Amino acid sequence: MKPSLPKGTRDFGPLQIRKRNYIFDIIRNTFELYGYQPIETPAMENLSTLMGKYGEEGDQLLFKILNNGDFLAKADKQALEEGDSAKALGSISRRGLRYDLTVPFARFLSMNRNELPSIFKRYQMQPVWRADRPQKGRFQEFYQCDADVAGSDSLVFESELIEIYDKVFTSLGIKVRIRVNHRKLLMALAETGGMDKNFIHFSTALDKWDKTGSEGFIREMDQQGYDKSKINQVVNILEQGFEEPAVQKLLSSSETGVQALREIDTLKSLGGFENRKNEVKIDLTLARGLSYYTGFVFEVEAPNSGMGSLGGGGRYDDLTGIFDYKGISGVGISFGAERIYELMDEEGFFPSFRAVQSKILFMPLDENAVNFCQNWCRNLRKLNIPCEMYPEPAKLKKQFRYAEQIKAPLVALAGELEMLENFVTVKNQETGEQEKFDLEGLVTLINQL
Amino acid sequence: MKPSLPKGTRDFGPLQIRKRNYIFDIIRNTFELYGYQPIETPAMENLSTLMGKYGEEGDQLLFKILNNGDFLAKADKQALEEGDSAKALGSISRRGLRYDLTVPFARFLSMNRNELPSIFKRYQMQPVWRADRPQKGRFQEFYQCDADVAGSDSLVFESELIEIYDKVFTSLGIKVRIRVNHRKLLMALAETGGMDKNFIHFSTALDKWDKTGSEGFIREMDQQGYDKSKINQVVNILEQGFEEPAVQKLLSSSETGVQALREIDTLKSLGGFENRKNEVKIDLTLARGLSYYTGFVFEVEAPNSGMGSLGGGGRYDDLTGIFDYKGISGVGISFGAERIYELMDEEGFFPSFRAVQSKILFMPLDENAVNFCQNWCRNLRKLNIPCEMYPEPAKLKKQFRYAEQIKAPLVALAGELEMLENFVTVKNQETGEQEKFDLEGLVTLINQL
Repeated sequence: MKPSLPKGTRDFGPLQIRKRNYIFDIIRNTFELYGYQPIETPAMENLSTLMGKYGEEGDQLLFKILNNGDFLAKADKQALEEGDSAKALGSISRRGLRYDLTVPFARFLSMNRNELPSIFKRYQMQPVWRADRPQKGRFQEFYQCDADVAGSDSLVFESELIEIYDKVFTSLGIKVRIRVNHRKLLMALAETGGMDKNFIHFSTALDKWDKTGSEGFIREMDQQGYDKSKINQVVNILEQGFEEPAVQKLLSSSETGVQALREIDTLKSLGGFENRKNEVKIDLTLARGLSYYTGFVFEVEAPNSGMGSLGGGGRYDDLTGIFDYKGISGVGISFGAERIYELMDEEGFFPSFRAVQSKILFMPLDENAVNFCQNWCRNLRKLNIPCEMYPEPAKLKKQFRYAEQIKAPLVALAGELEMLENFVTVKNQETGEQEKFDLEGLVTLINQL
Repeated sequence: MKPSLPKGTRDFGPLQIRKRNYIFDIIRNTFELYGYQPIETPAMENLSTLMGKYGEEGDQLLFKILNNGDFLAKADKQALEEGDSAKALGSISRRGLRYDLTVPFARFLSMNRNELPSIFKRYQMQPVWRADRPQKGRFQEFYQCDADVAGSDSLVFESELIEIYDKVFTSLGIKVRIRVNHRKLLMALAETGGMDKNFIHFSTALDKWDKTGSEGFIREMDQQGYDKSKINQVVNILEQGFEEPAVQKLLSSSETGVQALREIDTLKSLGGFENRKNEVKIDLTLARGLSYYTGFVFEVEAPNSGMGSLGGGGRYDDLTGIFDYKGISGVGISFGAERIYELMDEEGFFPSFRAVQSKILFMPLDENAVNFCQNWCRNLRKLNIPCEMYPEPAKLKKQFRYAEQIKAPLVALAGELEMLENFVTVKNQETGEQEKFDLEGLVTLINQL
């Protein structure tokens, strides 16, 4: 049998894991620096928790788990006969795989509301699964890295989360633009064009601005049957941008707009836009599509990378209402770890890693030297120095080939003479230098590497 | 809707995660110290990779994933009509969830054979899923932590893996007994009783020795119809134990026994049993059930804990043959992280952790102090000191309640006076001491904590 992997899934080898952990560690340490606490939720959730939370398309893309045992015993026989998959589903499957980290977080909050701090700052870094059509850079299993605050509507957290984006991408060495918008600003904009009745259409169309510019937006709004002059007026505002005083004046003509502008002022006064290493700007064309956001929204991109969004987030007024836990405002951000990896790999932003941590490979030259090498290894490991030995006195060519395969920086040869005088002959694999060392000398050498 | 978790699954809160990571980090660092490299495999594998690898019971306990979209379109209609779940399965499900880490590792080896070192030392720490009946301490999603060497039959690795067990449990503070046996020794034992024709029955029966002592074994062998005197003879050997010279003499009467004894001698000469902080002993009653082991087998237990096995492993001559990659010998061990957690939690072996890393919580006494507190936070974070602030000048009682909820060791109050003179009033939450500090003084205080 020739083994294979399911489409859209991946193995990670040692070097990939070192690089991935490099990204995860920077994100995790930054979250911790701001007082966020880790939680983890199970891969499997009840379908009743997941279904209906991600729109119709999301329901389709959920991986469902077949009930165990004789699953047909309790199946909906009529639905099976009719070939009605949607109707049959609930009778043969009760669970699905985690689709994102937000819904499980909301469930977690609802279930643990009495044990958690009044303001709960949590982060979560776990894989999620989506039955998307696999394509380059898009996978069916991928990591999400989220930080959210639940239980406060203070804009201090918006300011903090922008800071976290700034800090993480600076640490990773990626120059980014952090785009900020406010859903109420968008609502005010829609109002000026009389497009607020169908705000979802408005924001969905606007979501395409990134890719197609004004054209795509105009076409979509045209199809919705809006007046051409109204559309042009809105496009005009979008093209002038938020910083244009006339635009702000226009947007402040509605109560919604006034609220948004007031929140932007507050965020500014909290230092949300100041002292950043990366550009932070208010961008009226940022919509964040169909989502549940109600206040500020964020999106991060690396200009000219052709990579799309490296992260996004925003505020939602009612995170846990779906689980019968009302009045909890939340705000959060997410890092697109897979895209960040891809970008850093392409640009050569990763430090150089070795797959194996071993600083030195011991090579026994004869059978007697096996124990001798093992004891040297034991001594180094007592000092927390990762090392290993070739397990038998194989031909030197073979042992050196292994040293190259694991990219050991040093090798230590040991035969009769070495055992007699209790030293090893160390070769630096990079420089080719060869020298004798006793244990103390070897430890010093390794610590200097 | 009242949310719930699927049976047998768990959320992990911040404190649990800190404790779990404490265990994982010690295991991981020890693996790395011996030159093992991390790999990760996807949660979903093709059912063709998984089915038939874990026996009939294992096939039952695999979680299967329903094909996406209109899964009934290509379903086996006849099987559905007949209500034949087993027959219908293949037509509506192609994937399953990872059941252990060994089969995915074998698949990984087969798929990447040309890129890997000739001897590949890998570790893997990931969750696995089994549809076992949930009960106390047994979950449907749980972590496995495995280290395996593939591509060498040298007993140096057996010696190394025993050392790893010894080192990890010493670091965790758990006193254990490491039991060692050799499958060929068992085979020789079965031969002396004429029970080698059905070795699987023999080893399965022996596997119960731990729980029921000789009684269970005698009963099972009796049911197999073996001669009572033969059974008693075998029981007699088992009860005398390996260290009894007469037993070793008896076992060396067959070629299989001689091979096993020779390997035990080699392992001893490699220091496999020496200089350990924990007891390592050869135990003839250790069987490791039905598994694919062919050489040495290991099992770790904490005597008198009532906890069962905390880890196990052994050598298998043909790890990857199922995937058409022949002649690869492997040896590996596994840590039962969930049981280790349970034991350490019950015995109070964990260091004390705080859920939140924040060293200090800043409390603004009025609106103006919000920015002031934020700037102090920024300054501390620049020095890599985790901290946070209460986001608004709420009543002190409320702010102090939050400080207690997140267990902040220090709180810093800031109002008009503090802002004027640029200091904060710091209260040690444990001692109740209260003192003024400028930034430099505060940093010194925190670093001394």
